[in-house]
Amino acid sequence: MTTVTRPIIAMLTDFGTRDHYAGTIKGVILTLCPDAVLVDISHEIPAHDILTGALELASSYRFFPHGTIFLAVVDPGVGSSRRGIAAEVGDYRFVAPDNGVLTAVFAETTPKRVVSLTERKYARPTISKTFEGRDRFAPAAAWLARGAEMTALGTAVRDYVRIEIPQASQGDDRIVGRVLRVDRYGNLVTNISRAMVDRVSARGPIRITVGEHGVGALVETYAAASPGCVCALFGSSDHLEIAENGGRATDRLGLGVGAVVEVGRPSEAVLV
Amino acid sequence: MTTVTRPIIAMLTDFGTRDHYAGTIKGVILTLCPDAVLVDISHEIPAHDILTGALELASSYRFFPHGTIFLAVVDPGVGSSRRGIAAEVGDYRFVAPDNGVLTAVFAETTPKRVVSLTERKYARPTISKTFEGRDRFAPAAAWLARGAEMTALGTAVRDYVRIEIPQASQGDDRIVGRVLRVDRYGNLVTNISRAMVDRVSARGPIRITVGEHGVGALVETYAAASPGCVCALFGSSDHLEIAENGGRATDRLGLGVGAVVEVGRPSEAVLV
Amino acid sequence: MTTVTRPIIAMLTDFGTRDHYAGTIKGVILTLCPDAVLVDISHEIPAHDILTGALELASSYRFFPHGTIFLAVVDPGVGSSRRGIAAEVGDYRFVAPDNGVLTAVFAETTPKRVVSLTERKYARPTISKTFEGRDRFAPAAAWLARGAEMTALGTAVRDYVRIEIPQASQGDDRIVGRVLRVDRYGNLVTNISRAMVDRVSARGPIRITVGEHGVGALVETYAAASPGCVCALFGSSDHLEIAENGGRATDRLGLGVGAVVEVGRPSEAVLV
Repeated sequence: MTTVTRPIIAMLTDFGTRDHYAGTIKGVILTLCPDAVLVDISHEIPAHDILTGALELASSYRFFPHGTIFLAVVDPGVGSSRRGIAAEVGDYRFVAPDNGVLTAVFAETTPKRVVSLTERKYARPTISKTFEGRDRFAPAAAWLARGAEMTALGTAVRDYVRIEIPQASQGDDRIVGRVLRVDRYGNLVTNISRAMVDRVSARGPIRITVGEHGVGALVETYAAASPGCVCALFGSSDHLEIAENGGRATDRLGLGVGAVVEVGRPSEAVLV
Repeated sequence: MTTVTRPIIAMLTDFGTRDHYAGTIKGVILTLCPDAVLVDISHEIPAHDILTGALELASSYRFFPHGTIFLAVVDPGVGSSRRGIAAEVGDYRFVAPDNGVLTAVFAETTPKRVVSLTERKYARPTISKTFEGRDRFAPAAAWLARGAEMTALGTAVRDYVRIEIPQASQGDDRIVGRVLRVDRYGNLVTNISRAMVDRVSARGPIRITVGEHGVGALVETYAAASPGCVCALFGSSDHLEIAENGGRATDRLGLGVGAVVEVGRPSEAVLV
Repeated sequence: MTTVTRPIIAMLTDFGTRDHYAGTIKGVILTLCPDAVLVDISHEIPAHDILTGALELASSYRFFPHGTIFLAVVDPGVGSSRRGIAAEVGDYRFVAPDNGVLTAVFAETTPKRVVSLTERKYARPTISKTFEGRDRFAPAAAWLARGAEMTALGTAVRDYVRIEIPQASQGDDRIVGRVLRVDRYGNLVTNISRAMVDRVSARGPIRITVGEHGVGALVETYAAASPGCVCALFGSSDHLEIAENGGRATDRLGLGVGAVVEVGRPSEAVLV
């Protein structure tokens, strides 16, 4: 087995997989960089949903090899004056519209460098006003994969856009958070971290509620809950999830993104 | 970084991604040509919808590197006497059932050569009557990727099948076209090209209608329309699209594939 | 064209393609084995549906090159005490939870060797209780791709889990089977093989029923049935399918997985 190291470009978009859009950007990348290894993270980010794109990207990127280039295109402002950017974060690089889709990545690690994609020669000769993914972002990612320097792509920027990502509020005896996403299994993934829960549970027993519903138990695995019971556990990113063993918590509870999740004391339940 | 040029096989099918079918043809290709780089354009073409397959393929193929081989399988007549074909178009090659799925590609560029897949040794030993994608088309694409000549695959044909692709009709003051597809964002993509609209708008102001609805404005970008307003613009293939900024035009208007789109004069609106 | 043989890892999961999960395991694999060629068989196995996963995998794996490593993760018991296993079957290797998802593969070919994934160093340093696909199974597959021996991954096991796969019952004049899956085209795929039908039809004419419905004809291809007629034919895995030419048999008949399919004698119909 001969080892040939190839540049990896991992893609996260809202293009869907029914239309040709995702396929077309792969063609563009391979035209510029035939060696690139293309990896689909997801093309099924809900249309124009920058926040979900930001969260999914942040959950995934650090599991890729150092040197991976991420192409993240969720772009409701396509064709407008909003900039395109490339960013260097740790040993990774990102290409995206400057609309906040990199916010959650930047929140974990301050970028070493962010540049605006102003250098015209790293885009396609004609840039569509409706498909900059194809004409501007994919080429920029491919050029990085070919070895172009970040600084060649354009001028440094410091005022890149960040969006607000809902944060849970922590007290000594109470955490109030929200459901940030619902995954394929119907699990409700929250913005409450294990560390936050540990701080409250270190001081006494806890009770978890989501919307109007009490949650039966904080368990270690989905399977540890009784079948049909709604439980809480820490998911793969070490954040609190509400799940149903053998079912879909979102359907069972009728709750989804935005639902309020509270961690408090059992005694409070009596007061409710 | 060592450069090794590998043959690219780009796939467009109606197999879906839930069943194993798309995965299985990848296995067949890699068995015959371990070097092939496999690219998914789409496996979500609506089942048996040759026209949509033809249009998506034509929108995408020219963004791939020269030399790319396209495997296009939308095949309601699988197992029947309809032929399989391979075609050379510019620097690209295509393998498909002979049912018109290559029509839109051929309409852009006359094929240099089309052959019928008659040479038995470039198919699998047993050919299923229900999965020729696996047993006939994928192997033919893989053999081309391995270096087989087009002429080795079978005899030349000139009477390959073409389907009718709806064309817009153009007058000096009026264009009548149709919605050909609805994309993931709910945009209505028409068969009216920018050149057609330019010809009418060169002679005076224009008014665009879709179904019974007047369209507010011809804008440059989705974001340029007022939020919630239905607008028209030229999409990534330079054809007229009807879109809603921040919404789904198809849902807003209750219109989809086949809806009539007209470009005319504002005065006509008064007469309606 | 230089040939470089790379290890293939083919993935079948119920992760879906909307969440980042499938992308994340690709990142994990490429981190450990940058040379791996990643192939998606399906990530759309219905959530927690081990039987469907088992059947799809068995329909697909033998079309891949010898040496391919399959990563099959449909895992309702994630995080529990159920084991992870690696299996060698013919010239293929499989990594999966020990929950029966390899049953249909094992039913075709007895595994040469099955080991439990006990060797800690072939997993990620921290193993999530909710995403062992990422932390345990993907690394094991990547290590095999890098050249690790099966026996290095853990201790041999003989009591691996098998699930019950519904079998058709055969008599001289009658077969009673079931619909095992419904494919993208709405075809009802059964557990009745061609050999079983041949045995009955060798002794006289046959009649096929599905649920309460008689099936018009046993044909060779979908297109051979009259448009709109429900027919039976042998599909790509040489099992009986119920299909509608130009339509979706599942919708037409209102039947799906589990529906009873009988092959009998025409005279029986009179008695019904």
